[in-house]
Amino acid sequence: MLLFIMYLEGQAHFLKVEKVLFEGKSKYQRIMVFQSSGYGKVFVLDGALQLTEKDEFSYQEMMTHLPLCSIPAPNKVLLIGGGDGGILREISRHNSVDQMDICEIDTMLIDVYKEFFPDIAVGYDDPRVTLHVQDGTAFLKSVPNATYDAIIVDAFDPIRPEHELFGSPFFKLTAKALRPGGVMCIQAESLWYQPLNIDKLVSSFRHIFLGSISYAWTAVPTYPRHACFPLSSLNS
Amino acid sequence: MLLFIMYLEGQAHFLKVEKVLFEGKSKYQRIMVFQSSGYGKVFVLDGALQLTEKDEFSYQEMMTHLPLCSIPAPNKVLLIGGGDGGILREISRHNSVDQMDICEIDTMLIDVYKEFFPDIAVGYDDPRVTLHVQDGTAFLKSVPNATYDAIIVDAFDPIRPEHELFGSPFFKLTAKALRPGGVMCIQAESLWYQPLNIDKLVSSFRHIFLGSISYAWTAVPTYPRHACFPLSSLNS
Repeated sequence: MLLFIMYLEGQAHFLKVEKVLFEGKSKYQRIMVFQSSGYGKVFVLDGALQLTEKDEFSYQEMMTHLPLCSIPAPNKVLLIGGGDGGILREISRHNSVDQMDICEIDTMLIDVYKEFFPDIAVGYDDPRVTLHVQDGTAFLKSVPNATYDAIIVDAFDPIRPEHELFGSPFFKLTAKALRPGGVMCIQAESLWYQPLNIDKLVSSFRHIFLGSISYAWTAVPTYPRHACFPLSSLNS
Repeated sequence: MLLFIMYLEGQAHFLKVEKVLFEGKSKYQRIMVFQSSGYGKVFVLDGALQLTEKDEFSYQEMMTHLPLCSIPAPNKVLLIGGGDGGILREISRHNSVDQMDICEIDTMLIDVYKEFFPDIAVGYDDPRVTLHVQDGTAFLKSVPNATYDAIIVDAFDPIRPEHELFGSPFFKLTAKALRPGGVMCIQAESLWYQPLNIDKLVSSFRHIFLGSISYAWTAVPTYPRHACFPLSSLNS
């Protein structure tokens, strides 16, 4: 019996693998897709579970609708990462949106999602979407100030806080790219397990974003830690 | 290495056991207490995880404060089950409460909690508490109509819907014991995993309780399914 294993300190979570559907290595990361017993198809990056067909909506909906519903009539939205397309799918439900830019560096990841998860990658089908195959930091540097109403960052796992995107320079670029009154949303791990210090994150945001900082959370059963979301708004 | 294992369909959740602290069999069930690596002490009944020191508060607080804060100034409260004492501890924070009855049949369970989980069993120390060592159904039959402002049922696991407490007769007795405008709260499993049909439960409650039926949920990391709570209120 094949098992997919997620470890946390003192505990482990096993998913039964019915069949491995894809294994490959892109320029950036190892990609695996398997059919699970209870969660439909599962996508894994560098050994870390990314999403399952059964519960992905819980993450995608919260990452999208929390920020977009927190400001009136968002028009231009930038998604950094989120290459699966699920957040694009959710953004497209907002009629006020005219422009959806996605900055995703790994085209193999997109292709694998399109092949194995068409109900998620459907987000790319919206004509308002423009894909920028580029590094997030480089892309933000090219963006004129005050361009976006909302920026959603779904580009890295906060359990790896050493990731360069998780530093102040990246968020300063994000803040510059937001119009006054715009909103930024990022996943920031869980109140229950904190390799990342959420207090520290929120106070660093207070120096970068001028508006209110909110923290919200949802449950995604296959993330044993539960997913959480702070929102940072940049007021005028 | 010793592991405690919780199975669900197609998945398993393992907790690392540092040391088994107690194993015994009461008149009603097998009881085990172990020291875990990441969750403090863990209490297990008939092989099913009941609570851990790290996250028990999440369950106890929601089971208590959702119903008690939903009505003005609750005075008489009945807890059926909940022998660990954590819900009593939370009820005692409500100044309006003068009477806290707990109906728990298994005295060995109470003794084990008092020995190994003093911060939870502290709930028994409140002078407003009266312990009734009795079967919940038999106790409710002896209660005069319209006695309680709130009844909290923490007496069985909804993944065992065949349990006699999970039938209409039990809830009819509960409704009778509630004063008009009183409130009942019970744990009713998760929206994610439904061996129990929550729709069916809610519609059966609509026939028994005259007021509004609400459904709420929280996350308890060691319950891989997450805990959920419907509230039923009996209006005048």
